[in-house]
Amino acid sequence: MRISELSAAAGVPVPTIKYYLREKLLPEGNRTSATQASYDDAHLQRLRVIRALIESGVSIAETRKVIAALDAPPPTPYELLGVAHAAVAPGAEDGIDTAEAEKLFAQLGGEADQCDPAQLAGLAQALRNVERSGFQIPPDVLTAYVAAARQIAEAEIAGIPTDSLESVVRYVVLGTVLPEQVLLALRRVAEQIVSAERYGRDAG
Amino acid sequence: MRISELSAAAGVPVPTIKYYLREKLLPEGNRTSATQASYDDAHLQRLRVIRALIESGVSIAETRKVIAALDAPPPTPYELLGVAHAAVAPGAEDGIDTAEAEKLFAQLGGEADQCDPAQLAGLAQALRNVERSGFQIPPDVLTAYVAAARQIAEAEIAGIPTDSLESVVRYVVLGTVLPEQVLLALRRVAEQIVSAERYGRDAG
Repeated sequence: MRISELSAAAGVPVPTIKYYLREKLLPEGNRTSATQASYDDAHLQRLRVIRALIESGVSIAETRKVIAALDAPPPTPYELLGVAHAAVAPGAEDGIDTAEAEKLFAQLGGEADQCDPAQLAGLAQALRNVERSGFQIPPDVLTAYVAAARQIAEAEIAGIPTDSLESVVRYVVLGTVLPEQVLLALRRVAEQIVSAERYGRDAG
Repeated sequence: MRISELSAAAGVPVPTIKYYLREKLLPEGNRTSATQASYDDAHLQRLRVIRALIESGVSIAETRKVIAALDAPPPTPYELLGVAHAAVAPGAEDGIDTAEAEKLFAQLGGEADQCDPAQLAGLAQALRNVERSGFQIPPDVLTAYVAAARQIAEAEIAGIPTDSLESVVRYVVLGTVLPEQVLLALRRVAEQIVSAERYGRDAG
């Protein structure tokens, strides 16, 4: 198909597609003339993945890394998770204190060699950002977060497909990055439901 | 205290403080001369809240709204949630189909009048962004998300303090916005733990 047809099929404007081509997120089409190229279903699928990542707030640079993981899968689910996590995890300050994060890591059921230091540092940074505001997450709420995170991860990892390496890669990388906003949206809706149950919509 | 002392106490550079003053996120200090002003503990607390919000990825415009809610609290926890959610929830396309979001809303235990349409639309948009990528969240995983969101919300709403209106406002607004990154970081760490348990760090 032509770029205009690719644009219509994916619902992505032509100038945006050209931008992705320049940024090497999307591979070149097959040249059919000096000014035209032809694109296939693989381009369409890739374009949908790129758009979903970028709309989920992943940067161009990190999208490029996720895409690279889709093209050249590292061998283990654990390493794939590393790629996916690097794409969405914010960095951490140098030398951040990970003591609290390590406690939560143990509560999650982790053993010493199961978590990479960058992930622990990312958790420590998130905790630090909250603490700096003067806000404290109550212990019962933090316990609920830990239990929920463990349950979610169990369901997600149990769902890793076994039919092909490509589907493992897609599942792990996309399944880590893309549902984050779904999870946060569900939490917000649940907060409204429980708040209405407990306090009513009108009660002060 | 002087602006330089405020800067040292909060760990926020003076030019950043001046920017927050210009943006009216931080109220002016008390003028002590033509070029100097004095700041108090309320400024320091507010500055910590602003920094935490901005480091959590909340925009300047939305930070201003959260701050306004802290200064002039609307009367109900439900309305406070609305302010907090508006600060962090991404918008949705016009006329987005909310059928799937409504199903999840019912699974969360919601009744017809408990959720505002903007939140449902936000959930629908998050689901749509995932769907567009060609990735499907497996039904068991989605069920785990729903159960986790409900448990989290119950713990959070149960923890709403009762000692003063100001602490209710702080808890609801900051407690909604700030822990999001903690929750996502916990999920990532849990994914690594469960993946290592199930597949090992080295298994292909």
